[in-house]
Amino acid sequence: MTTDPRLAKLSLNQRTTQRWSVREAVDGCVRAGIGAIGLWREPVAEIGVPAAAKLVADAGLRVSSLCRGGFLTAADERARAEALADNRRAIDEAAGLGTECLVLVVGGLPPGSRDLAGARQRVADALAELAPYAGERGVRLALEPLHPMYCADRAVLSTLGQALDLAEAFPVQQVGVVVDTFHVWWDPDVWRQIARAGARIASFQVCDFLTPLPADVLLGRGMMGDGHIDFPPLRRAVQAAGYTGDTEVEIFNAEVWATDPDRVLATMAERYVELVLAD
Amino acid sequence: MTTDPRLAKLSLNQRTTQRWSVREAVDGCVRAGIGAIGLWREPVAEIGVPAAAKLVADAGLRVSSLCRGGFLTAADERARAEALADNRRAIDEAAGLGTECLVLVVGGLPPGSRDLAGARQRVADALAELAPYAGERGVRLALEPLHPMYCADRAVLSTLGQALDLAEAFPVQQVGVVVDTFHVWWDPDVWRQIARAGARIASFQVCDFLTPLPADVLLGRGMMGDGHIDFPPLRRAVQAAGYTGDTEVEIFNAEVWATDPDRVLATMAERYVELVLAD
Repeated sequence: MTTDPRLAKLSLNQRTTQRWSVREAVDGCVRAGIGAIGLWREPVAEIGVPAAAKLVADAGLRVSSLCRGGFLTAADERARAEALADNRRAIDEAAGLGTECLVLVVGGLPPGSRDLAGARQRVADALAELAPYAGERGVRLALEPLHPMYCADRAVLSTLGQALDLAEAFPVQQVGVVVDTFHVWWDPDVWRQIARAGARIASFQVCDFLTPLPADVLLGRGMMGDGHIDFPPLRRAVQAAGYTGDTEVEIFNAEVWATDPDRVLATMAERYVELVLAD
Repeated sequence: MTTDPRLAKLSLNQRTTQRWSVREAVDGCVRAGIGAIGLWREPVAEIGVPAAAKLVADAGLRVSSLCRGGFLTAADERARAEALADNRRAIDEAAGLGTECLVLVVGGLPPGSRDLAGARQRVADALAELAPYAGERGVRLALEPLHPMYCADRAVLSTLGQALDLAEAFPVQQVGVVVDTFHVWWDPDVWRQIARAGARIASFQVCDFLTPLPADVLLGRGMMGDGHIDFPPLRRAVQAAGYTGDTEVEIFNAEVWATDPDRVLATMAERYVELVLAD
């Protein structure tokens, strides 16, 4: 058990240790001296929001985010209404867990559709319906631009600039953005957009970009240091923009998932200090 | 043998039928009524530039581009000097083949490097050395922004906007850009950048974006209609920007490569008329 003060703003995104339940992940964070946790809805649902909230509070952790809402691109009315209802539930859950930050992955093109502009417009329309509901509950919708390789099937929101264009139509308390190093590191415009984001930055997530990408490109997220990203400039830019929140480590990676989670947390803490906090 | 006037500005990029020699590809284009060909250096080298140029000229085809120069990101002096020498040879070959357009894939991060800004700067520096040499020989360096998923290992040039920022430091006759639907379709800023590109557009390439991406993501390029891209808006935008050149079909795809090349050309011509020229 460590209480290294450098880990005070480090957060474990629960998907990084996806075999752990909420209780196990909370206990793991305490053992590793990590101050916050990013929860996912599915494992939270297994025990219910009140029980999850109590576990986290009793352990003295913060909930840095809830993953995730979104998937707002459906063209037919019924699917759209269902998505909006599900997002309202996700907002309620975030409020119940005591986190301000609900991460939204906006969704890709509907099956068979090539209407990218239409899908993007439907995201904007859905936000207009959800943002006030979120704001009234003290929750901020955190728009996550995903790497452009996921544009067709996961998220038609592809750059931080595009996320800010959307977010700026709403009060800063209602709609923010996620800066995830994996998704934005390649963007030649990212420095200008992080500065522009300022108080819109609702979450800062780190993990590395691996090559060659694995057969399932969703799993190309690696431990910091295993890939191509230079983290300190991005961390400094986010801080210079005014962000003072947690740094969440979110890794989707078959090898990481096969490793003993306590070892994953130890490596994660070590790499965070060495490669993210470094100047 | 057809002389469908709608195919007059269609070009076969040689990689689409990579098992064909230059002679076979030229003959295939003539059989299919396709007016132009985009050549690759390696098959051209098998017979030499003069022989390749004669084959194309005797068949009455245009050379829409030569692929490719680039790979300009090496940090050490020796590798850098070799890359510049190789690019000068590529420029000479383009001139010898009678094409104005030499496509450049700029290269990724050097092995082990995380200095993305440095790699990008070295591309700009190399262009300054190569552009006048190209201009004197009537060849234009065509900067190809590649999809951001190739940023680490193929091309640190990731958006059309970034390519134009680089190109605009040089006369329009010396440095242009490639608009390849596969690489740019996701970009929310692509419409503004195509309009900005104007006379800088040196090549328009089409192919589709497939999901799921194959294990080798370089082979995720599909026949038009097999993926997610809506082609006519991009074709219209390029034309509205003033581009009057050929539309080159460049597909890297294991299934396409396993198909009888004459059938590939027939499908390509059909899909081009149906899905690219359509209004």
